[in-house]
Amino acid sequence: MAAHEAGSLHAQGQPPAWLEVPSDVNALLQPIWPAGTDKSADGVLRIGGLAATEVAAQVGTPAYVIDEADFRARAADFADQFERAFAHLAGARVHYAAKALITVGIAGWLAEDGLAVDVCTGNELEIVLRGGIAPEAITFHGSNKSDAELVRAMAVGVDLIVIDSLGEIDQIARLAQAHDRRPQVMLRCSIGIEAHTHEFIQTAHEDQKFGLSAADGSVAEGVRRVLGHGRLQLRGLHTHIGSQIFDTHAFGQAIRRMAALTAAVEREHGLQLAELGLGGGFGVAYTTGHDPLDPAQIAAGVAAHLERECRAEQIAVPHVTVEPGRAIAGPAGITLYTVGGVKPVTLDGGFTRLYVSIDGGMSDNIRTALYGADYSATLASRRSAAPPRLARVVGKHCEAGDIVVMDEYLPADIAAGDLLAVPVTGAYCHSMASNYNSIARPPVVAVKDGLLAVLLRRESLDDLLARDLYS
Amino acid sequence: MAAHEAGSLHAQGQPPAWLEVPSDVNALLQPIWPAGTDKSADGVLRIGGLAATEVAAQVGTPAYVIDEADFRARAADFADQFERAFAHLAGARVHYAAKALITVGIAGWLAEDGLAVDVCTGNELEIVLRGGIAPEAITFHGSNKSDAELVRAMAVGVDLIVIDSLGEIDQIARLAQAHDRRPQVMLRCSIGIEAHTHEFIQTAHEDQKFGLSAADGSVAEGVRRVLGHGRLQLRGLHTHIGSQIFDTHAFGQAIRRMAALTAAVEREHGLQLAELGLGGGFGVAYTTGHDPLDPAQIAAGVAAHLERECRAEQIAVPHVTVEPGRAIAGPAGITLYTVGGVKPVTLDGGFTRLYVSIDGGMSDNIRTALYGADYSATLASRRSAAPPRLARVVGKHCEAGDIVVMDEYLPADIAAGDLLAVPVTGAYCHSMASNYNSIARPPVVAVKDGLLAVLLRRESLDDLLARDLYS
Repeated sequence: MAAHEAGSLHAQGQPPAWLEVPSDVNALLQPIWPAGTDKSADGVLRIGGLAATEVAAQVGTPAYVIDEADFRARAADFADQFERAFAHLAGARVHYAAKALITVGIAGWLAEDGLAVDVCTGNELEIVLRGGIAPEAITFHGSNKSDAELVRAMAVGVDLIVIDSLGEIDQIARLAQAHDRRPQVMLRCSIGIEAHTHEFIQTAHEDQKFGLSAADGSVAEGVRRVLGHGRLQLRGLHTHIGSQIFDTHAFGQAIRRMAALTAAVEREHGLQLAELGLGGGFGVAYTTGHDPLDPAQIAAGVAAHLERECRAEQIAVPHVTVEPGRAIAGPAGITLYTVGGVKPVTLDGGFTRLYVSIDGGMSDNIRTALYGADYSATLASRRSAAPPRLARVVGKHCEAGDIVVMDEYLPADIAAGDLLAVPVTGAYCHSMASNYNSIARPPVVAVKDGLLAVLLRRESLDDLLARDLYS
Repeated sequence: MAAHEAGSLHAQGQPPAWLEVPSDVNALLQPIWPAGTDKSADGVLRIGGLAATEVAAQVGTPAYVIDEADFRARAADFADQFERAFAHLAGARVHYAAKALITVGIAGWLAEDGLAVDVCTGNELEIVLRGGIAPEAITFHGSNKSDAELVRAMAVGVDLIVIDSLGEIDQIARLAQAHDRRPQVMLRCSIGIEAHTHEFIQTAHEDQKFGLSAADGSVAEGVRRVLGHGRLQLRGLHTHIGSQIFDTHAFGQAIRRMAALTAAVEREHGLQLAELGLGGGFGVAYTTGHDPLDPAQIAAGVAAHLERECRAEQIAVPHVTVEPGRAIAGPAGITLYTVGGVKPVTLDGGFTRLYVSIDGGMSDNIRTALYGADYSATLASRRSAAPPRLARVVGKHCEAGDIVVMDEYLPADIAAGDLLAVPVTGAYCHSMASNYNSIARPPVVAVKDGLLAVLLRRESLDDLLARDLYS
């Protein structure tokens, strides 16, 4: 059983500055829990009107628990706020980014609520179609799309295909000709703005795989090629500047560059582009150390930037699409674990850390190891009178980097059998889950009005062996 | 489609110092390919006597391809060298670490060849049992073992359970009593040595989840507790100091500390411990920038350190176990991809990088994104007369960090339809694979003497939907 690679050399340090010793270790910190989540007098966490103990009794642990009402409210809020902020312009449409979290049931919620969806692969497309999303509400993204994926996307009649490279233009044109289709397309542009948390950088060139470079003329060349293929209908330009963005300054810079590119197309080709895609990247609070904008602030900021930059470029304001995924799914989901044991570890600096072992780990949440992401946690099955103690929540995997929560204050008496809840795990936890150490993946359940619905059942050993031809 | 988190802010730099411009871009760099891998005159890669083009024709791409003879030869070499080096001492046993890569078929190879196996979870245990590994050849490791896992391990009669915490001692004793078992156990010790590549650090305390601390007295306390439970038979102490270790210095330091701990047990309890577990962590060459030891060097080095330290402590030399996983599975496997397209990206520094898009990505190899791991790659389907060009191999995922090979020279004419082979992907690639972006996972196939056997078939959309109760 191996500690593993670079992750094993941990700095032995104090907790991060944003982490405060709680005055009440039982209290839920806001705003990192789904709306309406609370604790009963006996300390049991209640989400979607259901006690965590009841969820665990019904489906076991670990389990991903999605607060359906919270998820749908966040999606609706994005849609409403963008509709409102862009009503005096050419309108805006919100696409849920399926890669954050998608199941057929969740696609069904989005379909019922009239949301559009963006997908990146053929399998994401099939899942949202099964959930009842209308093809005209689907944008097909993707890096290195296969012929089969493009043919299927055109056959079902997706609204829009976002082209990621010059080579893909000819690929789509060839397939459109062969299958007698006239797809609407956008061109993804690489514009030298990369945003992350409170920082963004501007360069001429971007060292990444996505899109056509504005700086080297690939965008202009791409527009010429698309217009040269009679079967491709150019709807506009698209960009995406990063993730976990907490203000609209970087979006303002991106809009400035995209407006200039849109104006250049109009000057060269006399063509008014109807649409501008601005991607996603709207930050969420994983801990109290994060302070995200709400959809109203994002929509108003983006609209103001867009109106100003289009006026400066003397172009008509295009219709806008945005693609939140994390900002809808992330805060709506929590993961429920059972504690297996605790181990106090004395560190060289003299202070101690309480290692709290749970029945999941990096297979159900790779973000801590992969991005150094911070998470929070709370005791979910009882009220504790013990003082807070600095803890690290670790998993079952044979790897020293198998950490779910780097730093959190938990009750000093936390022990085997306790339930532990980790919030803001709705996005990029299930979707990136693995079977490392042959551990079966948790179920994804929705809770609402005190009722539980299993969206994805728990994986079993039989599931793991289903592909094994020697089993 | 989002670029994603911290990984999107790439440094725009020159290639690493160890990466040389190849004189022949078609040539296979040694020693990073399975023994016997070569290219035919027309440039087609041949592994296990089978052309890469034939593998792709039979099972498609991406595919994990394991050279069965190479895997078994590496395992046998470890077993032979440790047997030889420890013949004049109390012997040694090699346990294959299943977490690196395990399927029922692979467990069958190990069973046929008389290897022992270490498992970390109940599901790993079930898989190796199905492959025919005898229970007496199985060590059960695991962080936060569940009651069910321990009961099952004792019921099938595994040779040894390695205890990871004080709490687990009481847990096993309780379960052994209830089920009338007398398990042999070892205690995993945290000894303040962490090794990685060519460096190791020594501290009194380790800030990690594994084992009982030597420094704070937990090892001594653990020994007392085990001996106090009549049903637990203490076979010895175990430690694991890291991974990707390229020399035996750190093992020497670890052996010194473990010999001292073993001697302390003998002094306090008059008990000679029969066994010493030294874990794994033997490095492999992912690129020509790595220079690993071979099993003969490792075995000789460990034996010499052990003999010296036991003499110094005036204790009998215990039997030794080691647990290579990566060093057996890693170099025996490659991943075969199909190129979808290429994109030259101009960087601010003036140089350009060729982005080569493949039909897999971070879902089938998370190590590049997770650990900053380096890999190599070669054109596998034809000979190219084009000059070498600095390339980055990227995947299909909607994430800027979706990189499989950070830096490699590939033929400048590499294009859609070419096969690309990435070596040393046998360990921790399939085992950590995800369904990110709802991408189905590749098959694991074994090749030998020109024949192909599918160990795990390719995942399908139906597999992905099997757990979805709304599909």
